[in-house]
Amino acid sequence: MKKGLFISFEGGDACGKSTQVNLVKKFFEENFNSDDYVFIREPGGTPLAEKIRDLILNYTEDKPLPMTELLLFCAARSQITQNVILPALNSGKIVIADRFYDSTIAYQGEARGIMSKNDIISLTRTIIGDLKPDLTFYLKISAQEAFKRKKPNEVLDNIESAGLEFHKAVERGYDFIADVEKERFCVIDATKTPEQIFNIIKEKISQKISENDKKTR
Amino acid sequence: MKKGLFISFEGGDACGKSTQVNLVKKFFEENFNSDDYVFIREPGGTPLAEKIRDLILNYTEDKPLPMTELLLFCAARSQITQNVILPALNSGKIVIADRFYDSTIAYQGEARGIMSKNDIISLTRTIIGDLKPDLTFYLKISAQEAFKRKKPNEVLDNIESAGLEFHKAVERGYDFIADVEKERFCVIDATKTPEQIFNIIKEKISQKISENDKKTR
Repeated sequence: MKKGLFISFEGGDACGKSTQVNLVKKFFEENFNSDDYVFIREPGGTPLAEKIRDLILNYTEDKPLPMTELLLFCAARSQITQNVILPALNSGKIVIADRFYDSTIAYQGEARGIMSKNDIISLTRTIIGDLKPDLTFYLKISAQEAFKRKKPNEVLDNIESAGLEFHKAVERGYDFIADVEKERFCVIDATKTPEQIFNIIKEKISQKISENDKKTR
Repeated sequence: MKKGLFISFEGGDACGKSTQVNLVKKFFEENFNSDDYVFIREPGGTPLAEKIRDLILNYTEDKPLPMTELLLFCAARSQITQNVILPALNSGKIVIADRFYDSTIAYQGEARGIMSKNDIISLTRTIIGDLKPDLTFYLKISAQEAFKRKKPNEVLDNIESAGLEFHKAVERGYDFIADVEKERFCVIDATKTPEQIFNIIKEKISQKISENDKKTR
């Protein structure tokens, strides 16, 4: 059976991830048949998962508590994995995800401390089995650099310093999972120019597709 | 600090649980100040949890898959626990729940096999900490008896036999948790008459309230 390829993009705030995902989308539109790939974004991607997304982002009557929010993320992930990602991979497609479970480990796990990182990993395995991205681009940015990008030329006040700690925690969370599952991680210095970063990504994707074609031929 | 009391009702289909919950509700209405107790039903009980309930029960576009459904149950439980159950218990109220996490262990765990019973217990502990009902009435009914109640005088066909296996699994699930957390379980033979059962429940609740009053006085 032809086996697809699962690629994800991860990184903290202001790392330039959206820019890269858009460049990759353009690259796929220009070089691949639209039947051969799927771009997804979490949470969402199925009618039910979009309903769940709406509860996470917009419900205000009794806003989802942190633990509730984490479980809603997991519910949406369960649905999109079974109904979209696995069928696409099983039919040989390339799935490109703007964030997947690494984000939950970094943000909800390390930065917000809702559940331990290992509990999130073990819950993830229970929910989606052994599915992992085959290739994860992690745009690594230091807390200081992220803050410079968000607030150029300003001195950090107390609240921003708290934000600085949060960003550092996100970075620690990503570094943790990048180490645990290092075989799939491509860590990129986010201070490089967008063009430099995109060239690394493009080359790595092309190489991975060619490897995958050889394996599944 | 005055500490409330958490009472739950559990049991498989056709065990007579709804009848008893209604009798208990009437008993509370007649004997207690309405500020002193709260009746809840899962999933639901907060505006967000009701929205989640609606997705579980009524969403048809891409129906929640079994794992998604389990996680939505957990999300709703997280929300009602933090926003309703814990505040009520902390202010000394009696909380009476028509089903709580034992149902998830029996139905989603043992009967449907979505997650192992121990994984559900450990996920439950992660979500709601060490909260457990102080007293759980488990109306235990055999599969054969449940089927007689649902389809009196009929011979079981194949599908109903499958239903029989399902019911047996639900019973095994309840027996498992009733054994693991036996200190809170009051197992009642559901073939007794409703009056007999209600008398047992009424006496046990009165006894528990009196014990609790002594402890927290």
